[in-house]
Amino acid sequence: MSFLYKADPARGAVWAQLFAQRAPETAFRLWPDVGDAREVRYLAAWKPPEDLVTLLPNVEVVFSTGAGIDQFDLSRVPDHIPVVRMVEPGIVEGMVEYVTQAVLSIHRDIFAYARQQAMREWTELSVVPASERRVGVLGLGMLGQAVLSRLHAFGFDCAGWSRTPRQVDGVDGYAGYESLGAFLARTDILVCLLPLTSATRGILDKRLLSGLPRGAWLINVGRGPHLNQYALMELLDSGHLSGAILDVTDPEPLPPSHPLWTHPKVRITPHIASATRPETAVEVVLENLRRHRAGLPMIGQIDRTQGY
Amino acid sequence: MSFLYKADPARGAVWAQLFAQRAPETAFRLWPDVGDAREVRYLAAWKPPEDLVTLLPNVEVVFSTGAGIDQFDLSRVPDHIPVVRMVEPGIVEGMVEYVTQAVLSIHRDIFAYARQQAMREWTELSVVPASERRVGVLGLGMLGQAVLSRLHAFGFDCAGWSRTPRQVDGVDGYAGYESLGAFLARTDILVCLLPLTSATRGILDKRLLSGLPRGAWLINVGRGPHLNQYALMELLDSGHLSGAILDVTDPEPLPPSHPLWTHPKVRITPHIASATRPETAVEVVLENLRRHRAGLPMIGQIDRTQGY
Repeated sequence: MSFLYKADPARGAVWAQLFAQRAPETAFRLWPDVGDAREVRYLAAWKPPEDLVTLLPNVEVVFSTGAGIDQFDLSRVPDHIPVVRMVEPGIVEGMVEYVTQAVLSIHRDIFAYARQQAMREWTELSVVPASERRVGVLGLGMLGQAVLSRLHAFGFDCAGWSRTPRQVDGVDGYAGYESLGAFLARTDILVCLLPLTSATRGILDKRLLSGLPRGAWLINVGRGPHLNQYALMELLDSGHLSGAILDVTDPEPLPPSHPLWTHPKVRITPHIASATRPETAVEVVLENLRRHRAGLPMIGQIDRTQGY
Repeated sequence: MSFLYKADPARGAVWAQLFAQRAPETAFRLWPDVGDAREVRYLAAWKPPEDLVTLLPNVEVVFSTGAGIDQFDLSRVPDHIPVVRMVEPGIVEGMVEYVTQAVLSIHRDIFAYARQQAMREWTELSVVPASERRVGVLGLGMLGQAVLSRLHAFGFDCAGWSRTPRQVDGVDGYAGYESLGAFLARTDILVCLLPLTSATRGILDKRLLSGLPRGAWLINVGRGPHLNQYALMELLDSGHLSGAILDVTDPEPLPPSHPLWTHPKVRITPHIASATRPETAVEVVLENLRRHRAGLPMIGQIDRTQGY
């Protein structure tokens, strides 16, 4: 019986060490060193091999090494094999840090002050209290909820939107597509933390972004394909939107020739907002192995009908 | 009996409105319209007039419109007149926002990613967990304590230094000059929130900054004269320090010819980290007027022997 890891090799080496310490009874294999393929019962992968079933005929669970499973081709994973996304505190901590930094940098005019510094200009800009800055988060899963809780601690006027109703303390909740317009109309800083599914692909289009008030900002920490990047640039150029902070793009890596790189109102980071941390991720995976053996539901097990 | 305001006229106009609503019995005067100078019992000023006693012979209390009183020439204020610095929640909120943003931007390599964007480079940098990032705050007054509490919520390894022992939950406390070396040696990101006094003027000198570990960062949100700016640039150029975020400089405004403006490892904002908010400041001033009339100590009343 073995556990196969197929993702970033440097992180995989840390997983190997952690398995050796905490689950020495489990043979840990680092792709492409599969060993006896019939022995592989568990697979942790950013992307499973295309010929999953023929290559690993006895696999019982497939773990995503990322918070989402949109990079999986689920049609290649038979229905009887549970698919588990990564739900671990390291991912949450990184996302809360990144989004808080992004929201505060917009709120406190950090980009305007950087332009002033380049011109050696010492001019105070007017300050809006946090209570008058309306932040809205699209997607109220584990990450959206954690981000909103932290932003609420700063006193921002917070709201969240999700497809089905979710309650977050101190946050105005909007649910369903019929309330999306009202949610957008009250949002100065929009944060996308949706899962990527067939229903959300391209959701950040010209129509949706035009529903934000003039001068609004976008922070996309969901997935690149959520956003129509050309609609974004059109609305930035027209002045409807003030700026965007993008941690995800389409494609990734963003090619050097892409106009987003040099757009003066766009800040880009290379999909680093949040990453699985081996120490905490292995803890959760080992707990899930115990649950699976005991016939219990696993943490982060996805619902195939929802796609997340 | 009148209340005289002598600071930023735009904010003063807001103070005037708030006084009219909340303390209509108090005649509010906006400098230089002093009215009958003998009627002035209370002065709120960024800097009191130099001829305070001759100009306003009946003044009973002098309020600073800022969190500090280092801009006051206390020798011009007779000992029997209480001096009160601004202790109000608006100042705290702004400072917590600014320092959190600055610490997170350092922690998450936002400046390095901005350079990469300019070169259209998509490269992930390694992430340090917050628990391994050592933040140290010099000064554990109201602002230092509030900043540390918020940073602690992000999981940073937090310490604080003050001249006399102060306790902040979850934060390692260092007290007195004999412990300053140990405090600096464990600090990756140093935040200065000291009051400016004769004891702290120039405290951020070459010797102190050299006591930080190689690669450390400085955030100065205290006062410009805390820092020897040339020592800072020397340590940045030698590579001992990685960068600095300065909200205060010496002098202010920083002249266009000053080398700090263009130093590639320095970020400058024009003393905007935190400002008195009229709405909350007037509340505190009115409360202090009630306390003064009742013979009670006022919120923020300074100790002349300490200078803060």
